[in-house]
Amino acid sequence: MTDVAHMAHALALAARGLGRTWPNPAVGCVIVKAGRVVGRGWTQPGGRPHAETVALAQAGAAALGATAYVTLEPCAHHGRTPPCAEALISAGVARVVTGTGDPDPRVAGQGHALLRAAGIAVTEGVLEAEAQAANAGFLKRVTRGLPFLTLKLATTLDGRIATAAGESRWITGAAARRVVHAMRMRHDAVLVGVGTALADDPDLSVREMGAVHQPVRIVLDSRLRHLPDSRLGRTARHVPVWMCHGPEAPAAARAAWQATGARLIACAAGPDGLDAIDALRRLADEGLTRIFCEGGARLAAGLIRAGLCDELVSFTAGKLIGEEGRAATGPLHLAHLAEAPAFRLASVEVAGVDVLSRWRPL
Amino acid sequence: MTDVAHMAHALALAARGLGRTWPNPAVGCVIVKAGRVVGRGWTQPGGRPHAETVALAQAGAAALGATAYVTLEPCAHHGRTPPCAEALISAGVARVVTGTGDPDPRVAGQGHALLRAAGIAVTEGVLEAEAQAANAGFLKRVTRGLPFLTLKLATTLDGRIATAAGESRWITGAAARRVVHAMRMRHDAVLVGVGTALADDPDLSVREMGAVHQPVRIVLDSRLRHLPDSRLGRTARHVPVWMCHGPEAPAAARAAWQATGARLIACAAGPDGLDAIDALRRLADEGLTRIFCEGGARLAAGLIRAGLCDELVSFTAGKLIGEEGRAATGPLHLAHLAEAPAFRLASVEVAGVDVLSRWRPL
Repeated sequence: MTDVAHMAHALALAARGLGRTWPNPAVGCVIVKAGRVVGRGWTQPGGRPHAETVALAQAGAAALGATAYVTLEPCAHHGRTPPCAEALISAGVARVVTGTGDPDPRVAGQGHALLRAAGIAVTEGVLEAEAQAANAGFLKRVTRGLPFLTLKLATTLDGRIATAAGESRWITGAAARRVVHAMRMRHDAVLVGVGTALADDPDLSVREMGAVHQPVRIVLDSRLRHLPDSRLGRTARHVPVWMCHGPEAPAAARAAWQATGARLIACAAGPDGLDAIDALRRLADEGLTRIFCEGGARLAAGLIRAGLCDELVSFTAGKLIGEEGRAATGPLHLAHLAEAPAFRLASVEVAGVDVLSRWRPL
Repeated sequence: MTDVAHMAHALALAARGLGRTWPNPAVGCVIVKAGRVVGRGWTQPGGRPHAETVALAQAGAAALGATAYVTLEPCAHHGRTPPCAEALISAGVARVVTGTGDPDPRVAGQGHALLRAAGIAVTEGVLEAEAQAANAGFLKRVTRGLPFLTLKLATTLDGRIATAAGESRWITGAAARRVVHAMRMRHDAVLVGVGTALADDPDLSVREMGAVHQPVRIVLDSRLRHLPDSRLGRTARHVPVWMCHGPEAPAAARAAWQATGARLIACAAGPDGLDAIDALRRLADEGLTRIFCEGGARLAAGLIRAGLCDELVSFTAGKLIGEEGRAATGPLHLAHLAEAPAFRLASVEVAGVDVLSRWRPL
């Protein structure tokens, strides 16, 4: 087995934590001694214990003289627990291989430096692109103060998300809807605009996946028009609901939402209600690293216009609704086709009766 | 080699004629003697010679005692040439294997009967579903008096075909546009509505494919509003242009279009200008078996509403235009989502930077 293969193993383990480790990164760690895997770990729900701690505990004395593969540079700062770099040194590993560096200013090369100072051989940047992709949410939050944002579109062949009367259940098939629930589970939070909240009264929770973890449920609702007696309001004590509102939200609505157990996040006003960039900054400040946006059309357009979409997942159903139906996106204000926001195809697959394509900004 | 393998070979040969044999079917024929292929043929451009004639000529004396694989029941009627059933008998083949029967009332089992009466062993229905799919245009024309219609949609991720100002070049990439030209080449005719003709002044010919054959170019234009001095009008003497018009087309426009060399086809009026079903019936009467419709939105919606689409090919480009852009389809007048025209996914692939999915009516 090569370094690359062991790192791929560690990356696969890291993915298990996605959506459950914020504000910490979802890291994976594999400890290998004489070609045998003696310890495996990934960041646990809530962000602790760290992947290295779990893997070292599993390896026990076998860690002595072993190689540790870690998807992200081990932390070097004393937080609630001693830093992982120190734990690796104490355990006596001979070599550490990392996927990519941790730009967190409290780490930023000091993890690698600590290891080297202790006489440990360090190899950096194995499967670096994959490691950066796996940590995209954490890295974007630390370096740019914004979460990684996945925008979901689920449309007919003619780009509609509902009939003229607003009927939208269901455009896509059961298999695609299950895939959406799996996607929700791998994000820290699910986000919708107030129009969608009012029209669909969505629950936004993960169902039918045997899920124990639920993402935070967020509504961008400048004037807090969504009803505290909605599905979100009634369940806010069981699964977190965060209401992003603007300065003009009425005091009564704030009080009513606070009474549900939801958290209120005050954001700056923007031309379309809320300033989307400011709202996402505040959500990153609260620790969110990966957000899954499920519409509606105006919010999608606002996020696209602001260049905030890091991935676009598009479900296409074999139906047609016609021009009277509701459009998938709101206004983009293009003067020319050349200005159209452009994405490159990352993958395409079949999801039950629908097509699922994933796109990244060009 | 089995019967199925030889029939698959014959079907592959048959496909070479698609778009070039109307009003005749695109048939393939393989003649096999002692496990060796001694003759191969497919319907030649213009519909003659037939596949069997070509394959028998190639086989020569080797046809004696051989097995002939033909994708469609050999013809039994005396037309411009003697029937193929007689040619197979004269050549002394011992066995004939066919893909599917020819429902043309002049054949309709008589081809098979003639062969059997001559003492030839006949096996029918080998790869029958594939043979029917390969002959779908011919079979639909003969049995229902309508051509097989392929509808192309080329949209952004949000289902738009142009900006608000009408800019549409180019939504899809160069590879997808090449695929479209290859699709045109495999159809008897390319069809657009008058809105698209006026907006884009399209040429609708096959380019960059080393093509010698060009499909008929058709505009559905009830009042003959398209300009005789358009690209279509100016080239109508070189590649056929058929203008389908309604009773209200002005005499001056008819005369001007006739002067270009285009053919005028009088159709019944319908709620949206022309009656789409009547127009397609007339085109089938003229011998067309496979029509490729490239829009625009109103024509697409009319064809979908009338249940006239046999295949829908959808190109999706990684761009977004927003709700101001032009919709891919016109009005469908749905009261409920359950009434939405539904298609099942037949295939999905990558075409350069775009996604190409093919759908069939449910």
